[in-house]
Amino acid sequence: MIYIVCGVSGCGKTTIGKALSQELEIPFFDADDFHSKDNIKKMSEGFPLNDKDREPWLKKIALQIENWHRSEGAVLACSALKQEYREILTSIPSNYIQWIFLDGGFDLISKRLQARKDHFFKKELLASQFETLEKPSKGISVSIDQNVEEIIKQIITNLSIQKSQIGIVGLGVMGKSLARNCLSKKLKISVYNRQVLDKEVNVAQRFVNDQDDSNIIGFDNIESFVASIKRPRSIIIMVNAGRPIDLIVEAMVPFLTEGDCLIDGGNSHFKDTSRRTQHLSELGINYVGAGISGGEEGALYGPSIMPGGSKLGYQQSRKFLETIAAKDKNNIPCCAYIGPGGSGHYVKMVHNGIEYAEMQLLAEMYHLLRFYYNKKPNQISDIFNSWRTCGADSYLLEITADILLKEEKGDFLIDKILDKAGQKGTGGWSTIAALEIGMPLSTISESVMARNISGMKSKRVEASEVYQIQTTKVKEDDSRFLNALEKGYRASSIINHAIGFDLLANASKEYRWDLNLSDIARIWTNGCIIRSELMERISSLFKQSNETSLLLLPEIVSFMKDSVNPLTEIVSVGLKARTPLPVLSAAASYFLSYITQKSSANLIQAQRDYFGAHTYQRVDKPLTEYFHTNWKK
Amino acid sequence: MIYIVCGVSGCGKTTIGKALSQELEIPFFDADDFHSKDNIKKMSEGFPLNDKDREPWLKKIALQIENWHRSEGAVLACSALKQEYREILTSIPSNYIQWIFLDGGFDLISKRLQARKDHFFKKELLASQFETLEKPSKGISVSIDQNVEEIIKQIITNLSIQKSQIGIVGLGVMGKSLARNCLSKKLKISVYNRQVLDKEVNVAQRFVNDQDDSNIIGFDNIESFVASIKRPRSIIIMVNAGRPIDLIVEAMVPFLTEGDCLIDGGNSHFKDTSRRTQHLSELGINYVGAGISGGEEGALYGPSIMPGGSKLGYQQSRKFLETIAAKDKNNIPCCAYIGPGGSGHYVKMVHNGIEYAEMQLLAEMYHLLRFYYNKKPNQISDIFNSWRTCGADSYLLEITADILLKEEKGDFLIDKILDKAGQKGTGGWSTIAALEIGMPLSTISESVMARNISGMKSKRVEASEVYQIQTTKVKEDDSRFLNALEKGYRASSIINHAIGFDLLANASKEYRWDLNLSDIARIWTNGCIIRSELMERISSLFKQSNETSLLLLPEIVSFMKDSVNPLTEIVSVGLKARTPLPVLSAAASYFLSYITQKSSANLIQAQRDYFGAHTYQRVDKPLTEYFHTNWKK
Repeated sequence: MIYIVCGVSGCGKTTIGKALSQELEIPFFDADDFHSKDNIKKMSEGFPLNDKDREPWLKKIALQIENWHRSEGAVLACSALKQEYREILTSIPSNYIQWIFLDGGFDLISKRLQARKDHFFKKELLASQFETLEKPSKGISVSIDQNVEEIIKQIITNLSIQKSQIGIVGLGVMGKSLARNCLSKKLKISVYNRQVLDKEVNVAQRFVNDQDDSNIIGFDNIESFVASIKRPRSIIIMVNAGRPIDLIVEAMVPFLTEGDCLIDGGNSHFKDTSRRTQHLSELGINYVGAGISGGEEGALYGPSIMPGGSKLGYQQSRKFLETIAAKDKNNIPCCAYIGPGGSGHYVKMVHNGIEYAEMQLLAEMYHLLRFYYNKKPNQISDIFNSWRTCGADSYLLEITADILLKEEKGDFLIDKILDKAGQKGTGGWSTIAALEIGMPLSTISESVMARNISGMKSKRVEASEVYQIQTTKVKEDDSRFLNALEKGYRASSIINHAIGFDLLANASKEYRWDLNLSDIARIWTNGCIIRSELMERISSLFKQSNETSLLLLPEIVSFMKDSVNPLTEIVSVGLKARTPLPVLSAAASYFLSYITQKSSANLIQAQRDYFGAHTYQRVDKPLTEYFHTNWKK
Repeated sequence: MIYIVCGVSGCGKTTIGKALSQELEIPFFDADDFHSKDNIKKMSEGFPLNDKDREPWLKKIALQIENWHRSEGAVLACSALKQEYREILTSIPSNYIQWIFLDGGFDLISKRLQARKDHFFKKELLASQFETLEKPSKGISVSIDQNVEEIIKQIITNLSIQKSQIGIVGLGVMGKSLARNCLSKKLKISVYNRQVLDKEVNVAQRFVNDQDDSNIIGFDNIESFVASIKRPRSIIIMVNAGRPIDLIVEAMVPFLTEGDCLIDGGNSHFKDTSRRTQHLSELGINYVGAGISGGEEGALYGPSIMPGGSKLGYQQSRKFLETIAAKDKNNIPCCAYIGPGGSGHYVKMVHNGIEYAEMQLLAEMYHLLRFYYNKKPNQISDIFNSWRTCGADSYLLEITADILLKEEKGDFLIDKILDKAGQKGTGGWSTIAALEIGMPLSTISESVMARNISGMKSKRVEASEVYQIQTTKVKEDDSRFLNALEKGYRASSIINHAIGFDLLANASKEYRWDLNLSDIARIWTNGCIIRSELMERISSLFKQSNETSLLLLPEIVSFMKDSVNPLTEIVSVGLKARTPLPVLSAAASYFLSYITQKSSANLIQAQRDYFGAHTYQRVDKPLTEYFHTNWKK
C-alpha cells in the first residue's frame, strides 16, 4: 500500500508522513528528494515550477511507487496539488494508493511558516499553491489544526474504516463467486491467491482488475492480505480440502491477532475441522468450519451456509455470512450455527451424500424412461417438468429438465456426454461416517458405488459385448406407468432424505452436537443443490418434532403407505426389463427392512454362533442374556 | 523353569549345575544344603540315608522349587536317584521341571572320587548309590566322560531341542483352538495369557492343565514365555485388533532377538499391519500379518491362513503355519504367502466382506421362502440341502441347512433368536477400503447396512406398527419358482465373489502387492467360512487367467447369461411381495450396471457441470478434452 500525504507547502507533510511511516512500520519518502538539479536551482532562485517542470519529476516518483508497491509499501510526502499530478502518480492500481490530504487554511499555514526559523517564507509562493490546489475527491482528509498525535490518530482511524470487512483466500471458481457475491452486497473485501509459476500467476490482481470495484483489493502476499482486514478479522478460506488448508492456516497464523476468525468454506473432512478448531482455539483464533453449498451460482447469488466450530467466531462473522447467504421463503438467511467441532462440515458432507443419491435417482428415472420406456430426452424433460408442478419440485429436477432439452446441431447434447461420473469424495465420506457409527446409508452408498461402476467404462464396454443383454423395451399404458413412476420417485427421494437425516440425528447423539434438524432443513431450502419442496416440508415437520425419524411422521407415513406399491412395482418392472436401478432398489429394500418387525437377521445371528461361537440373544429371554448352541446335526 | 541336575555322588552335579546356572543366568542351589542336622550327622558318621530320612528333606526342597518357580527359576543339583524321589520334587507342573541326568559308569566315578583331595571316598557308598539308581526316563541324559564345556554345550543343545517350536499369545476362543490344533500336530508350544484381576486369572496355566500334554507350557510372564521358544522364534499373536496388538508387541520386543518372527493372526486393519511390519523390520523383527479364517472349528482342525508382510518371517514360520492349516482337495495347505505390507489382512478383510454378503444372501433366501413362499424352517433346510447336491455346495449353505433343522421343545430354535445382527467391523472396513480406491462393493456394503438396519430393532417395531404393511404370501408353481430361486441365488453369489475379487485385483495394482488371485481362491477352498464349490471353480478359472474379471470368464459368462432372468425375476417378485432384498437387488443392479455399455452417468456429469462447472468429456471427442456448457434455458 502506498500512502501519499499531500497538501500545500507548510501543511506538515514531512512531519505527518514520518510519524505515519513509524506507526505503519513502512519506509518514508519525500517527493522533494526526487527533483532534478534544474528544478532545485529554479526553486532556490524563488521561481515557482510550472507543469512542464513537474512532469518528469512526477513520472520519476511514479516509477518509484511501482517499486515500493512490489515490496512492503511506503509513505510518501508529496504536494500533489492537482488531480492531473495525482493521476501521473497513480502508476499502480488505484486501490493500492491511499491519499491523505492535510487540510488547513491560508492564514494558519502562513502563521506556521513564519514561525519556522530555518525556512524562508514567501507569501506569494503559498498563495500560488492555494490557487493551484484541487482538493482530492478520494481518500482521507484531515484538519491540521490539531497536534501531530491527534492527526495520526485520526488518519489511523480513517484508514481502519477503509480496511476490508472480510478476507477471502483462494480464488478458484467458488472463491471468485463468493468474492463477487460480497461485492454485490457492498462489502469491502480483500482477496488473496498464491503465486504458482506458470499456473497461478497474479490471480488476485487479475481478478481485482476485472471487477472495476473500489471495494476489492487483491494480494499475493499473505502478510499484507491479513493486515488489510479490519480486526477482529473474518477470513474465508476457499482452498482445496486437506493439506492445502493446513498450509494456508499455518501461513496466516503468525500475522493473525487473538480473536480473529478463520472460516473454512471448503469441503473439509469433519475430523480435520474438529482437529483444527481445537488446535486454533489454543492459539486464541476462532476457527469455523462452514459447509457451503450451491455450486458456482449459489456462491455468486447466495449459497446455503452451514457454519460449525467456534461459536464466538460464528457470532463475529455472522453478519457477513448472513449477508452473502441465500434467503429462505421468509427472507431469513440460509445460514445458521450448526454446532461445535466439525459438525458444520459433517452436515455439509451428509448434504452431499443426499445430493449424490438424488442425482442418481434422477439418472435412474431418466434411464428407465429413455431405454425401457422409449422416451426422447425432450419428452423426459416434459415429464420431469410436470412433476415439478405437483409438489415434487426441486432444483435438481429443474436443472435435469433443462439439461434434457439442450440441443447441439439438432442432436441432444446429453447423448454426447461420456457416461463416466466423477466425484469429490464427500459421498464416500458419508458412507464411511455412517459405518463408523453403525448406521445404514443404503441409498447414498449405492449412489457412490454407481459412480464407481460408471467409471469402469472399458470393462463395461467389454462386458456388454460379451453378454449382449439388452434392456427390454416395453410400452405400457402411459398414465398408469407414469403415475407409478412419479410416486415411486417421490417415495425413494423421501427414503433417501430419511436416511440422511437419521444419520444426522445419530451423529448428533454420538458426538454430542445437539443438531437442530429443522433448522438444518430450513437452511437447505434455498441456495443449496438439494433445495426442494420436500425440504420445505421436512423443515416444517421437524419443527414439530426434532426427535422422530422422518419415516415415522404422520404426513410422511400417509404418503409412503400409498407409495409402497408404485415404488416396488417400478423397481420390479425396471429390473425385469434389465435396467440397473441401484439406488431405487436400495431405497425400496431399505424401506421394506425399516417397516419389518421380524427381519432375517436371526439367521445371521445363528450362523455367527454356529461358526464363531458369537452367541445370540433370544426373543423369549431378557436381552441381557446371551446363548450359545451346538448347532451341528 | 527348574533345571535339576541329578545323578550319583561324584558325577559332577555341583560343577555342572553351577556352570549351567551361569549359562542360563538363573540362581544355583545344592540339595545337600537343605539337609537336616540329623541327616548331616548320620552321613558324616558314614551311614547311608534311608527313604524315611530323605522324605522330609525332599519335601523341603519341593517347597523351595515352588518358590523358585514363582520367581525366575533355578538350577538345582540333587542326586534324585529314584523315581519316587523325583515325584516328591515335582511340586510344580512337570512341564516346568527339566531333568538333566549326568551319566557315568561306576569305574569312571570311583576313579574321579579317589582323585579328589578334599573328599573321603567310600567305595561301598558309591556302590549303594548305583544300586539305588533308577535312571530318569524323561529329560536329558549327558555322558560325563567329557570336559565341563562339552557337557554344558551338550545340555544347552538338548535344552534348545526341548524348547517350544512356536508360541501363542492370547488364549481367547481362537488362541485356544489354535493351540489345541498345534498339539494335535505334535508341535511343542508355549502359550501366554496376561493376568487381569478378576477377569483373566491364570488363564494360561489352567488351559495347560486341561490339556494333559507334555508339549505345551504356559506362562503369564512375557519374558519367560519368549525365552521358552526356540530361536529364531515364531510367535502367533491372537489378541484383539487395535491397541492390544501394539501393547503386546511393545511388551515382547525387549526380549526378542533379531530374526524372530511375530505373526498377527487376528483381524487387524491392513493399514495397522503395514505400519507394524515397517516399524518392526527396522528393529530386525520379521512381522507377518496373517488373516486366519475358519472360526473356532477352523482354528481347531485347520483354518485357512493368509500370511502377508515379512516374506522372511513367512518362510521361517511356514512349516508351522502349513502344519496347522487346512488342506485343499490336493492335500496342499490352505496357506500361502499373500504379499508385502498389510496384504494378508486386506485379503482376510475382503474374505469377511464376501462372507457378510453370502450370509445375508442366505438370510434373504430364507426370508423369501419363509414369509413370501410360506415354507417351514425344515422345508427350507431341505431346499438348501437340495442346492448343495447340484453344484452350489458351500460351508455357509451347509450350516444354514443345519440351523434350520434345530428344534427346541418342539419349536424351531431359529424363531427364538433375536433378529439383531452384530458385526466385528471387517465388513465395514471392506466398504471403506473399496471407497478409498474408487471401487464399487455393492453387495458387501449392502450386507453391512442390512446388519445396521437389523440393529434398529425398536425403530423397526415402531415402524411396523405404524405402517402395518405385511409381506404378501403367494404360492406359485413350486418347481418353477424354486428353480428360479436356486439360479438367482447362485448368480448373486457369483456376482458377490466377482465384486470381492475385483476389489482384490484393483487393490493389488493400487498397492503393488502382486496378488495371486487363483492361489487366494485356493486357500479359501478349505478351512475358511466361505469355502465352497464355487471357490474351487474360481481357483481353477483364475489359474488360467489372473487378469480377467470373474464376470468375463467364459464359463461364468455362460452361467450368468442363463441366470439374468431368474435373478431379476426373483428380486422383482420378492420386492413386489414386500420382502426386503438389499443384497439380492444390489447384486442384480450391479450386474446390470456392469454389462451396460451406456450407463446413465452422462446425466450425472451434465448435472455436475450445470451446478458446479465440473466439466465433462464427450463420446465424440478425445478423452483428453473437457467441456463446459451453459445449460440454462
